[in-house]
Amino acid sequence: MTKPTEKTETDAQHGDHGADGSRSDRHDGGDNGFTVTPYEVDGEIDYEKLVERFGADPLTDEQIEGLPDHPLLRRGTFYAGRDVDEYLEAARAGDPHAVVTGRGPSGPMHLGHVVPLYLARRFQEATGATVYLPISDDEKFLAKSQSFESIGAHTRENLRDLLAVGFDPERTRIVIDTADADVVYPIAVRLAKHLTPATVEAVYGEQDTVGLQFYPAVQATHLLAPQLVEGRQPTLVPIAVDQDPHVRVCRDVAAKEALPVEKPSALLGRFLPSLAGPGKMSSSDDAPSIELADDPDTVAETIREHAYTGGRATIEAHREHGGDPATDVPFQYLRAFLEPDDDRLAEIEERYRSGELLSGELKEILIDRLTGFLARHQERRAALGDLEGELAPYRLTDGERERALASAGVARLP
Amino acid sequence: MTKPTEKTETDAQHGDHGADGSRSDRHDGGDNGFTVTPYEVDGEIDYEKLVERFGADPLTDEQIEGLPDHPLLRRGTFYAGRDVDEYLEAARAGDPHAVVTGRGPSGPMHLGHVVPLYLARRFQEATGATVYLPISDDEKFLAKSQSFESIGAHTRENLRDLLAVGFDPERTRIVIDTADADVVYPIAVRLAKHLTPATVEAVYGEQDTVGLQFYPAVQATHLLAPQLVEGRQPTLVPIAVDQDPHVRVCRDVAAKEALPVEKPSALLGRFLPSLAGPGKMSSSDDAPSIELADDPDTVAETIREHAYTGGRATIEAHREHGGDPATDVPFQYLRAFLEPDDDRLAEIEERYRSGELLSGELKEILIDRLTGFLARHQERRAALGDLEGELAPYRLTDGERERALASAGVARLP
Repeated sequence: MTKPTEKTETDAQHGDHGADGSRSDRHDGGDNGFTVTPYEVDGEIDYEKLVERFGADPLTDEQIEGLPDHPLLRRGTFYAGRDVDEYLEAARAGDPHAVVTGRGPSGPMHLGHVVPLYLARRFQEATGATVYLPISDDEKFLAKSQSFESIGAHTRENLRDLLAVGFDPERTRIVIDTADADVVYPIAVRLAKHLTPATVEAVYGEQDTVGLQFYPAVQATHLLAPQLVEGRQPTLVPIAVDQDPHVRVCRDVAAKEALPVEKPSALLGRFLPSLAGPGKMSSSDDAPSIELADDPDTVAETIREHAYTGGRATIEAHREHGGDPATDVPFQYLRAFLEPDDDRLAEIEERYRSGELLSGELKEILIDRLTGFLARHQERRAALGDLEGELAPYRLTDGERERALASAGVARLP
Repeated sequence: MTKPTEKTETDAQHGDHGADGSRSDRHDGGDNGFTVTPYEVDGEIDYEKLVERFGADPLTDEQIEGLPDHPLLRRGTFYAGRDVDEYLEAARAGDPHAVVTGRGPSGPMHLGHVVPLYLARRFQEATGATVYLPISDDEKFLAKSQSFESIGAHTRENLRDLLAVGFDPERTRIVIDTADADVVYPIAVRLAKHLTPATVEAVYGEQDTVGLQFYPAVQATHLLAPQLVEGRQPTLVPIAVDQDPHVRVCRDVAAKEALPVEKPSALLGRFLPSLAGPGKMSSSDDAPSIELADDPDTVAETIREHAYTGGRATIEAHREHGGDPATDVPFQYLRAFLEPDDDRLAEIEERYRSGELLSGELKEILIDRLTGFLARHQERRAALGDLEGELAPYRLTDGERERALASAGVARLP
């Protein structure tokens, strides 16, 4: 297995990034036709170009084979990373290793939001990974026009969805920034000591409030939390590619602070396409999307009315020339993870491309799979008891809080 | 009693301040010969000019009479304020009112550091004020070249000094930023939502780290904490004048956030002069200073060797022309609070001015008073048991934490 070439420049300065605070160095390149930052995704994304600019590495076939078997991985939705080999080696050797992926609770959860969560569960099942799930209610309060009450209500609902994914409570910790501030804030302060305004501005652009200026230190805390609690270990962060700046900043900070941690590894994913076609599925889009709470009728109606297809203008033309699976959103959803069987997916692709399968029929296949997926999720969600009781086994224990603070060099008082 | 004219401009923009982030608007005026910010005090301070520039109000005789009787007040060490009348009215009426003054635990405590604490105790004794004592270990970690371990060790020692002052635990709360981050951080996030980088830079200048950019939101949390816990009430903040920017930022934020709080009132003090003469007594000064832990021999030696006097070059000249109490540091210490008896102080002043009292003899009077003051402090400190047990009655209770978060609109989870 080839180890990635050691990089001497810092991650935050990677590619054409600068750490001098000048906006022109950011990767939102209006001249490139697309914008990707943690706070804005716009335009048609060239994923290969993005990874190159971010300074990450495309996944190799060998890496993909080493990862747990999952449609999101073997079919390339997750397609790039940083230091993936270090994680793979620990997972293969049975050494401690962790996965971190979280949720910004600004609204009801959509299909796209649970993709990294189900992937993290797969990692946990396959290799026993410790999973940390940070909930950035502080960031969402700061970044959105919502009250803390509103963010709190979304947090409670989102937590039920996280719990419904079915993580192993023995190996999973859910960290809520405000509710776990006793641990999160002191560690973030430790990390913030050498996080300069210039670095934050170079990576994220100018922020409107001092809260968002500080937040990257909190995010870095999330990504280092498993190591601060459980000891130094490779930590994989599977995230949509727009969240990569958080990982870059954390890696720089981790390297500077001489804490007992490895720089976290990243596994970067494409977005699920919006039902309306290319672009991110986002709560803030006007385009309709699939919510985790949708019932079968709503799912069917939404897909039938709104899913962008790769079909022809008429049935006759479709029968003659066939459809285009590459632009067909129902096919792309099946391909991402909703049709896990490769043979069946290949058959669907072939029949659609040949014109045998009509766009309306392909939509019905997606509706069937999606309804099944959501029904299983909703069933687990409905079986949950009161949130406090369900959440309890996933909260950091007192001992874990002590260990995290001690690892970060924060003396517990008195 | 005259109510101060209602001001329409914001406090942070008061005087010649600008909120546009330009450094030239800050009140450190190199062209004025002195610099006063929370992070730097330099040069010979013109206190009257400073208050004018800060946009605060000189205390009136009526206000001074309304305040509890204390040498620091009646002799003008505290000499200016903001909204002092509101506080006085509540104290006189027996309505709830609070005092906030704290400690940045970056080293052993000096004489100057306990001045506002003993004043706060006096307020509590005289009118039953609730006293909140925030400990900004996060800020000191961020602002100083010290590890969290080192700041933690100073915090534990400083806490013993705070406890030795003799506050009433029923009416006093000690809030430690890292140890009470469960309350402090979520409220600071709430306040940070509308605290812009431009405001922080206009008031404090550029900061080196995102931690210090965020810190003004934490400081604002300190000043509003009594009201968030106990309900809306006038809150007086007796502080050295260099800390006034924190109050200004808090007043602006309090006004913007529509929280159930009054803008805090400020009571602004001159510094105790350095032993070496004019300027601030600071741990970072090279000039020797009196530490709370000094034994009588050390005190005597320090005063005898280092105290700047207003005496003449020779005994003969002194006998003939007399000394100058205004520049004599031992006299200024006695005047501040170490000789509380006005008649005796007047007698000392008269005898020194006439030449009857020599500088060496005046030093011995200070040594006597100072040794007595420190002995009483040290005796109470030595009588303390283990820190955890002693601190317990001063910590926020679970109910108080709930109330503070609820007042700030932060939903407790789950």
